Amino acid sequence: MLDESNNWGRWGAGDERGALNLLTPETVLAAAGCVREGRVLGLSLPIRGATSSPAPTTVPHLRGRPLPQHFMSVDGGDYAAGTRAIGAGLKMADDALVVTPHGTTTHMDALCHMWSGDELYNGHPADRVRSYGAGRCGIDKAGPVVARGVLFDIPRLRGVPHLAATDRIGPADLEGCGVQVRPGDVAVVRTGWPLAWQDGPDAYWAGQPGLSADAGRWLAERDVCVVASDNAAIGGLNDRQLADEGLADDLHMILLWRHGIHLVEMLWLEELAESGRTDFLFVVAPLRIEGGTASPVTPVAVL
Amino acid sequence: MLDESNNWGRWGAGDERGALNLLTPETVLAAAGCVREGRVLGLSLPIRGATSSPAPTTVPHLRGRPLPQHFMSVDGGDYAAGTRAIGAGLKMADDALVVTPHGTTTHMDALCHMWSGDELYNGHPADRVRSYGAGRCGIDKAGPVVARGVLFDIPRLRGVPHLAATDRIGPADLEGCGVQVRPGDVAVVRTGWPLAWQDGPDAYWAGQPGLSADAGRWLAERDVCVVASDNAAIGGLNDRQLADEGLADDLHMILLWRHGIHLVEMLWLEELAESGRTDFLFVVAPLRIEGGTASPVTPVAVL
Amino acid sequence: MLDESNNWGRWGAGDERGALNLLTPETVLAAAGCVREGRVLGLSLPIRGATSSPAPTTVPHLRGRPLPQHFMSVDGGDYAAGTRAIGAGLKMADDALVVTPHGTTTHMDALCHMWSGDELYNGHPADRVRSYGAGRCGIDKAGPVVARGVLFDIPRLRGVPHLAATDRIGPADLEGCGVQVRPGDVAVVRTGWPLAWQDGPDAYWAGQPGLSADAGRWLAERDVCVVASDNAAIGGLNDRQLADEGLADDLHMILLWRHGIHLVEMLWLEELAESGRTDFLFVVAPLRIEGGTASPVTPVAVL
Amino acid sequence: MLDESNNWGRWGAGDERGALNLLTPETVLAAAGCVREGRVLGLSLPIRGATSSPAPTTVPHLRGRPLPQHFMSVDGGDYAAGTRAIGAGLKMADDALVVTPHGTTTHMDALCHMWSGDELYNGHPADRVRSYGAGRCGIDKAGPVVARGVLFDIPRLRGVPHLAATDRIGPADLEGCGVQVRPGDVAVVRTGWPLAWQDGPDAYWAGQPGLSADAGRWLAERDVCVVASDNAAIGGLNDRQLADEGLADDLHMILLWRHGIHLVEMLWLEELAESGRTDFLFVVAPLRIEGGTASPVTPVAVL
Repeated sequence: MLDESNNWGRWGAGDERGALNLLTPETVLAAAGCVREGRVLGLSLPIRGATSSPAPTTVPHLRGRPLPQHFMSVDGGDYAAGTRAIGAGLKMADDALVVTPHGTTTHMDALCHMWSGDELYNGHPADRVRSYGAGRCGIDKAGPVVARGVLFDIPRLRGVPHLAATDRIGPADLEGCGVQVRPGDVAVVRTGWPLAWQDGPDAYWAGQPGLSADAGRWLAERDVCVVASDNAAIGGLNDRQLADEGLADDLHMILLWRHGIHLVEMLWLEELAESGRTDFLFVVAPLRIEGGTASPVTPVAVL
Repeated sequence: MLDESNNWGRWGAGDERGALNLLTPETVLAAAGCVREGRVLGLSLPIRGATSSPAPTTVPHLRGRPLPQHFMSVDGGDYAAGTRAIGAGLKMADDALVVTPHGTTTHMDALCHMWSGDELYNGHPADRVRSYGAGRCGIDKAGPVVARGVLFDIPRLRGVPHLAATDRIGPADLEGCGVQVRPGDVAVVRTGWPLAWQDGPDAYWAGQPGLSADAGRWLAERDVCVVASDNAAIGGLNDRQLADEGLADDLHMILLWRHGIHLVEMLWLEELAESGRTDFLFVVAPLRIEGGTASPVTPVAVL
Repeated sequence: MLDESNNWGRWGAGDERGALNLLTPETVLAAAGCVREGRVLGLSLPIRGATSSPAPTTVPHLRGRPLPQHFMSVDGGDYAAGTRAIGAGLKMADDALVVTPHGTTTHMDALCHMWSGDELYNGHPADRVRSYGAGRCGIDKAGPVVARGVLFDIPRLRGVPHLAATDRIGPADLEGCGVQVRPGDVAVVRTGWPLAWQDGPDAYWAGQPGLSADAGRWLAERDVCVVASDNAAIGGLNDRQLADEGLADDLHMILLWRHGIHLVEMLWLEELAESGRTDFLFVVAPLRIEGGTASPVTPVAVL
Repeated sequence: MLDESNNWGRWGAGDERGALNLLTPETVLAAAGCVREGRVLGLSLPIRGATSSPAPTTVPHLRGRPLPQHFMSVDGGDYAAGTRAIGAGLKMADDALVVTPHGTTTHMDALCHMWSGDELYNGHPADRVRSYGAGRCGIDKAGPVVARGVLFDIPRLRGVPHLAATDRIGPADLEGCGVQVRPGDVAVVRTGWPLAWQDGPDAYWAGQPGLSADAGRWLAERDVCVVASDNAAIGGLNDRQLADEGLADDLHMILLWRHGIHLVEMLWLEELAESGRTDFLFVVAPLRIEGGTASPVTPVAVL
């Protein structure tokens, strides 16, 4: 039975990995068994530097978020302009990245990303999340995820190219996909919303389709370890890019905070959807950013 | 026979993925077949922010490189100090990362990272590597790597905790490990050098053990798609943190530039070594940084 | 007579300070003599961090430029959340700034900022401007400016609150202000355009008023050492935020490139205009960013 | 009489400018009257980018602080490599700066930089200093400083090139300089310590000379508005780069926290010392970084 108390005996008091504890050697072996074709798909959007790119703002992102910046500290242009090679002739390019993952990249949320009251997931004190990083439930605590992924392709179910901004996905939609969910699975939910970016930023920013609270509970009841989607917030957003749900029904509260289910957002799922596959090996390995609230990632589906 | 001309018919003129083209559905299926225990190991060092961390410089890194910086743009401290929750009570932590991957993090090199003359790997013009990023052979061209990994544990072979700074690994060492290498494998070479950090930065900076040129050629002849190591430059370094080899024998030139073999550096391989496993599923999924010379990564071994 | 050849005997071949060489002990003494009231006015816009500020985009800036980011690496919130004081009780706040000055802040352009062909101002090779910074004509070469400032208040002359986006300022406007210009003066030109921001970003981005080419020449003929204005590009801009002039008439080409006249842009001049003063001591001291193309600044008028 | 209670009637309850309120039209006029030669001296160290500079760490800085990073987003090398000019032929260089001012640059401290207990200078709540910046006593509250500067050249007084790391400056030293201090003056204290950098970082990091607590009180009693020095912390430092004084005698506590006297640190004073001038016009104009704990600055002496 579903317990939304955010007070888990099953994880143990000190736990910071949440639902990733559902992963066991058995689930990993079963996940590896989903590899049947040997095809590999990357599920991430590009990270496009905002400073000097000719097209800095052409990757889907939430309005007002600081875009990634990418700088070359030495490049081919320098050698063209006369920079001397190293030693007997070695040349090199080097660079730096400035990135705020939420809202601008395909990323995985840490369990410290959202909470209510004074406690993070599982009773960890929110006071430990400070300027030098999250002392509890940071993304460095998650570790790599190797699991069975299952795809809920809602636009295919509804016969549309992508959901509309105001569409919300209910339990019936998830049921309708006919996917068998097992404990420890990664639920990958396709809305198709990145396709809206093709009509311009304003179309994308008009709101976002997403899971309803009941659909979130449906997934939590089935003990998935991660919910991943191609929208920006798992739940839907209004045109101010905020969730309309109250605290009890907020998707981050239900999944991340109460159940310790990690969220992966802003995926690119179009090739996966075209593959027709609904189960596969899913791997996502967040950067070990100590105390990070998220990590930009390239999730992988192995079909 | 080994061709070091950097002029490959086999990849095709337009190719920017190099030896990753060796990966096929068959190699992926074979790699998945290496999962026998269901254990998952992350192979990366932590990313520790340099600005306010109490221990900013305690992760192995090359001297003089700009360390990662991690900033929280809102955190639990703000709420403790009176910041109001969002709406009915939602609180959030958000952050930003500034990272220069080479020399400071576990990272994967793009094929544009090093070259000689006016051409990158495979004849791509170095002039296309500019301030807005590498127009050719950037890390965004690599895509996720799902392959069979094979471990060459040189300290175990030699019966030492870790190699010494001046040790170089020869073909006989690789042969001596008794590992069967197949085309498309990821060669994971352990030197144990991160353990030298325990004796302080100066010990770590005294030089680094690494592959000799002949060992590099030995791997290239066997058509590995990636060489990954726990040292900083695949080859060895002297106490000025430079390679001693000339251009013909430089490991980056042999592997990355001439053969298009991607390099993953600064791994943490201690648990993998302890596992006793020499073949496994290896997954590394670089961030899709457009025009990037590298990506920080968390490589994964699935045993 | 005005020479637009960008080939100056008067500065000497090695010179990288341009028209700032017009400043002499005599001009400095005369400038100090303009202090008659003892009032001090700062002439800069605020620098507002974009990451977590409640109002990140509410300071005038050019569309699409990367906004400043400001991060606290330790703050009062951390102590509220339990961070221990240093030693016997010292607490501190520390921070970092990421800033791209052009188009986002009140800033001073270096002579390396714009050019045509292969040479910067005064024949310095453009090839020396590389990824590690401008080896010639960087902002570190400028040094502090202490000069007489003269105000051309064009909206006051025309009897409007601020100029319109399509307005261009001609020599007759400058003449009409009745200001006596001396060699080495800083010409401060008010358009009032920051006031357009009050009507929203779109109003501000509809274009910008600015100097016509002939007005630029009028100032160059009078040997001013700096032109400073409250618009973003000294010349006018169209609604794509570009100049309409050809190369010969481009204001940056006329002033910065051909005459070595430094430009200070995006000032806030409202209090200065209200003061009624047309001459004053003007001080601007760019940060010594080695090889920088600009520096964010707080110019000062002492009345 | 000196009041160290940090509870000032004289500034008023809402005040965030501290001792800068001592500046009046009269002090500004008197300061302008100090300009007698028309010479202008910049008093800052260079800001040298750490990423790709050939000499990143050759500017004095405190050990372990994140060095400035300077990136070019477009430069002359790009045009050499084939980047097309804008429109009819315009070329441009653009850049970004990442800077943590304390300990790495010539900078001015905000009144929010240090405190004890729960209150900043003048009773402002420390809880208002949060991740989005200091809501009270940020550097944006200071405004430009135009004042009379007076030089205390301690190495000249003692007949040494520079003070030793363990030297502390007492009231007798300040008296011995024979400088007449007036309310609202900027006290510029030379230790010569940047010269120690010529002997290498380790020499510089061996500690730092600085003001004793009694010397700090001597200056506070004379109502200076700013204390500026060429050391890193106004007071002295030990070889761990920390102050040895207790809370009551800490220089930041005495000057910044109790008296609201702004501090400018890490100046370059060698040319000023050589000038033989002990009074001059001093101008420092911090960037208006909203909520900033400091600003990098180029202070100016006009002789």
